[in-house]
Amino acid sequence: MAKDLLYGTKLRWTEKKMAIVSFEKGEKPNINIGIAPEFMGHKDMITPEDLFVSSVNSCMMSYFINVAERMRVKLESYESSAYGILSEKGIDFIFSRIDINVDVKVKDEKSAKRAHRAIDMAKKGCFVANSIKSEVNVEYNISILE
Amino acid sequence: MAKDLLYGTKLRWTEKKMAIVSFEKGEKPNINIGIAPEFMGHKDMITPEDLFVSSVNSCMMSYFINVAERMRVKLESYESSAYGILSEKGIDFIFSRIDINVDVKVKDEKSAKRAHRAIDMAKKGCFVANSIKSEVNVEYNISILE
Repeated sequence: MAKDLLYGTKLRWTEKKMAIVSFEKGEKPNINIGIAPEFMGHKDMITPEDLFVSSVNSCMMSYFINVAERMRVKLESYESSAYGILSEKGIDFIFSRIDINVDVKVKDEKSAKRAHRAIDMAKKGCFVANSIKSEVNVEYNISILE
Repeated sequence: MAKDLLYGTKLRWTEKKMAIVSFEKGEKPNINIGIAPEFMGHKDMITPEDLFVSSVNSCMMSYFINVAERMRVKLESYESSAYGILSEKGIDFIFSRIDINVDVKVKDEKSAKRAHRAIDMAKKGCFVANSIKSEVNVEYNISILE
C-alpha cells in the first residue's frame, strides 16, 4: 500500500509585511519571515522565495547524505549553493529555473566514485525537485581531500 | 523586457544528518536544518519538507497582504495552516498535494468583500504555488471582528 507522509506548517501574520512560521511536529524553532523587498517587503528577513529555493537545495543534500551513508562514502564535506530564478509570466512571476552547485570532498578514490553515483541518484530522486515545475540544473564537483 | 529576480541560498553539511542554510542577500539569519525523521534524520529540526510546505503557505500570505493593502482592507488578523502530502511514487516520493486553510479577520463589511477578492487573487497569482506540480487547495474563512 502506498504510504503518505504529512508535513504541517502554521503561519501567523504579525504586522506590516511580516509573519511567523511554525511547524507541527517535534520541537522545531519558528521562522520569522517577511515579504521580499522586491515586492514592497523587508530586506533582512527570510522570504517565501528563500524558503522555496532552500527547500530544493536542502532536499538534494538530504538525499545525497542518506545514499552516501548507505554506500559508506567517507565524506569530508558537502557544500552547495542554489539560485532560484523568478521570471515574469503575465502579470505574475514563476520560478523558471533552479541552478544548484554542489561541492563534495571525500577521503579516497573509492569514496569519490561512490559519491558520483550518490549525486546522480539525488538528482533523480530528490522529492522537492521532482515536485516542482522549474527546471533544476545540478552541477557538481567531487574532490579527494589528502 | 521581462524581468528576472534571483534568490541565492547556500548550504553547508555539518555532521550526521544536519546542515546550515544561509541566504545571500541582506542580513538574514541562518536556518539549521536536518533530514526528516521519516528518512532516518532528526525529530526536532526543520526539514527540507518543512521549508517546501512553508514556502507555499507564506507565499500565499505575501500575495494576499500586498493585494489587501492596495485594496485598503482593514485587516485584523491573518492565520493559515498548510499541510503537504508527500506520496510514494515508484521508489521515491513526490508532493502530491498542499492543503491550505486561511483564516482572515477584518474590521468591516467592505473590508470583508475586498478580502474575498484578495484571497482569490492570491490563489491565482501565488508564485510558489504556480511553480509546483502539487495540487494546491485553498480553503478560507473571512469574518468581521466587532
